[in-house]
Amino acid sequence: MTDTQSVLRRLADQLGSDAVRFGSSALEPFSADGLPTRRIRPGGVVLPRSREDVIAIVGACRDAGVPFVARGAGTGLSGGALGDGDTVVIALTRLTQIRHIDVVNRLAVVEPGVVNARLGQAVRPHGLQYAPDPSSQTSCTLGGNVAENAGGPHCLKYGVTTQHVLALEVVLPDATTVRLGSPSGEPWGPDLVSLFVGSEGTFGIATEITVRLTPLPAAVATQLAAFGALRAAGEAVSRIIATGLVPAAMEMMDRNCVRAVEASVYAAGYPADAAAVLLVEVDGASEALVSEEAETVETILREAGATSIRSATDPAQRERLWQGRKKAFGALGRISRDLVVQDAVVPRTTLPDVLEGIAAIAEHYGLVVSNVFHAGDGNLHPNLNFDSRDPSAVARVEAASAEIMALCISAGGTITGEHGVGVDKLQYMHDIFDPTTLSAMDRVRRAFDPERHANPCKVIPLRSCREWHGFVGRRA
Amino acid sequence: MTDTQSVLRRLADQLGSDAVRFGSSALEPFSADGLPTRRIRPGGVVLPRSREDVIAIVGACRDAGVPFVARGAGTGLSGGALGDGDTVVIALTRLTQIRHIDVVNRLAVVEPGVVNARLGQAVRPHGLQYAPDPSSQTSCTLGGNVAENAGGPHCLKYGVTTQHVLALEVVLPDATTVRLGSPSGEPWGPDLVSLFVGSEGTFGIATEITVRLTPLPAAVATQLAAFGALRAAGEAVSRIIATGLVPAAMEMMDRNCVRAVEASVYAAGYPADAAAVLLVEVDGASEALVSEEAETVETILREAGATSIRSATDPAQRERLWQGRKKAFGALGRISRDLVVQDAVVPRTTLPDVLEGIAAIAEHYGLVVSNVFHAGDGNLHPNLNFDSRDPSAVARVEAASAEIMALCISAGGTITGEHGVGVDKLQYMHDIFDPTTLSAMDRVRRAFDPERHANPCKVIPLRSCREWHGFVGRRA
Repeated sequence: MTDTQSVLRRLADQLGSDAVRFGSSALEPFSADGLPTRRIRPGGVVLPRSREDVIAIVGACRDAGVPFVARGAGTGLSGGALGDGDTVVIALTRLTQIRHIDVVNRLAVVEPGVVNARLGQAVRPHGLQYAPDPSSQTSCTLGGNVAENAGGPHCLKYGVTTQHVLALEVVLPDATTVRLGSPSGEPWGPDLVSLFVGSEGTFGIATEITVRLTPLPAAVATQLAAFGALRAAGEAVSRIIATGLVPAAMEMMDRNCVRAVEASVYAAGYPADAAAVLLVEVDGASEALVSEEAETVETILREAGATSIRSATDPAQRERLWQGRKKAFGALGRISRDLVVQDAVVPRTTLPDVLEGIAAIAEHYGLVVSNVFHAGDGNLHPNLNFDSRDPSAVARVEAASAEIMALCISAGGTITGEHGVGVDKLQYMHDIFDPTTLSAMDRVRRAFDPERHANPCKVIPLRSCREWHGFVGRRA
Repeated sequence: MTDTQSVLRRLADQLGSDAVRFGSSALEPFSADGLPTRRIRPGGVVLPRSREDVIAIVGACRDAGVPFVARGAGTGLSGGALGDGDTVVIALTRLTQIRHIDVVNRLAVVEPGVVNARLGQAVRPHGLQYAPDPSSQTSCTLGGNVAENAGGPHCLKYGVTTQHVLALEVVLPDATTVRLGSPSGEPWGPDLVSLFVGSEGTFGIATEITVRLTPLPAAVATQLAAFGALRAAGEAVSRIIATGLVPAAMEMMDRNCVRAVEASVYAAGYPADAAAVLLVEVDGASEALVSEEAETVETILREAGATSIRSATDPAQRERLWQGRKKAFGALGRISRDLVVQDAVVPRTTLPDVLEGIAAIAEHYGLVVSNVFHAGDGNLHPNLNFDSRDPSAVARVEAASAEIMALCISAGGTITGEHGVGVDKLQYMHDIFDPTTLSAMDRVRRAFDPERHANPCKVIPLRSCREWHGFVGRRA
């Protein structure tokens, strides 16, 4: 029996057999996350019910020198929740308590397994919202959001996860517990909260998260504009940003994406012949303010050559305009067995050229690419449809992804905007960072985890992780 | 000759005698910063002219095991730029180059000695601004701003320094150079930029800083309201925030502060009988938007009981409304030989009670306290006038400061909002953080600086730093 298996047996005795998963069929759901090009079976899975359970599990791993991987809902898109046969996966989905909502000071204290949208529902009656809204928000957990520093359409105005986390209780890899930050959100001293958010499970496991809540805007106006050319839509985005106005969201979908949406059960009445559809939402403290902003946006959309504009201010109409965008990944996912949702960032001004380049790369590899993106901050999601049972298709998707990354880097961009590095982007880290920068990251990591046992071989590429780098298209 | 003196002699040979300061009179200006209760003479001062000089200086300190302290303009208010006789102060005021302004991507690359306001002037012709605007902005340096994670009135809307730093080049305590972040501002992976910003010189020296620029607002409206009671002004602040509207700035001054301003050459025509004066500024992408917001603000100010309101939209009138606020510290500084500008944060809702408590503490110690504060985010600056030549006055200021800190903590607040910990707040760190949290901070610090030679005995209280804790009211 390996060390990993003995740890799992011991934990089954300690926490009850219901808390531990062994064997291939039980482990099947934990052999992949939202990244369809990689599958690998972990040694086992443990499902803690409390902070104390997490401490016991991490302590058992520490004692036996066994690596562990924290996992939320498994919706991550970069393979960050995968672990090999030596690894104990710690699934935090049973830690679902919303411990405290402080309406006056606008904050909430939650366990890591709380689903993003559930927190939104809980605070809405108080006129509050938790702003970061990843597309997976009806299933992804706040613990996963913290690990990945998740974004979402409304992060253009409200900021990504790291701007909304005030404090954390963390179980470190040595099984000690530490509180980082505070409800008043100290802006001084070594900012360990910002260090932890986005560290993708390599610094430990958050067992309690204190998040900032923001007031629900009193008024919201949404506009959906169709364009005959992607370049015109891109121009509209640049002009809106140039005014200094910050829309709550500014989302774009290209022709392939619009067609997929309209061909699906999620059809939202988008003009199917449009080369691009741009969704712009403004929100604010009063109807008058918002209608003023919406007018500015509409003028710019028309000047930039929008062929049609639909506007909505009431919730039901707005929901309808958003429907196509929110279900875009679902609609794209129906076209083929598998879908890689890629993620990169480019300077806004280079968007049209980069999109043409991506189309050329997809054509070269005989792939269909559809683009959905957070246009306001240049965060692209080129989506590649394929069948993961076909090894050649997997290889082509990987090769096309690599070329897309190189293209985005050469345009002055970077390899991920909000999906993290995980295993998928490990191979590109050397294209973005110097060895000295990567080594600085690793020094900080080893301050808490000298053996690198927390989510090993993720984020920072190391020579000892070569099997993960080369883990392209292989199946467990 | 001590190790420190040999390092200084060696550096004088290497960099030229003009680059090194020895001897008591030359060191006098470096024996204090903006914190008037502490004076101590460093071993010497070195003034590098280039990144290479910084590397040489840090390398010489490393080789000899000599501690060093980075210093900008010396305007810091928590004693963070002080060093004792064993210490080499590295003054970065000669590194004043603005290396690059990228108008399209809205960023600037600067050396650490660039003065905050000078960057503002340089980018203004391009319709851009560097948003963080500490009161000392006409003299403080961007390197110092990074070290302290500086704030300022307009950080209510625009965020503090850490939200504006995209990338850093840092000379680590081992004299190696590392680049952190990137111009595209990666929001994922271990966020070493956020870790460095606000670390008060304990992680190394930034030799190049890439900052985000934001568009100058197309329209700005400023309102100055007088109130007969502090509580009414506090109520106005809460109501404005409750609408969801985010003013660019929301500043309050109490009666003592208004009187000091009006008695000075900076008299701004503030109603001298007001119990509180509230300055609210809104800005945005168009005149129409801003006048809409300004109307909302005015209605709330009237409803909350403002006794008079003055409004301004053109730059000269606005300048006049701001003058009293901007010169408040100057005006207060004229009342007595010395002025301690304290700094703390409390939940906005507790502001009136806390201010009453602070007044009682000041009265108990026979001190005059005047309050200027960033009301929008509950960041207080109780200012204590005294004469530092009188040891009993120094002791009373220290004792009153400690009670003010305890009061703010008990109100659910914290010990500094934007001035950092330095040496002044070291003694209170145990009141805010667990030993395990402090030890986590120290672990990260030691990842880069195992000997803790970069700005020793600052930020994190250690047993070995007892002489700094006890360094109350002593004079060099």
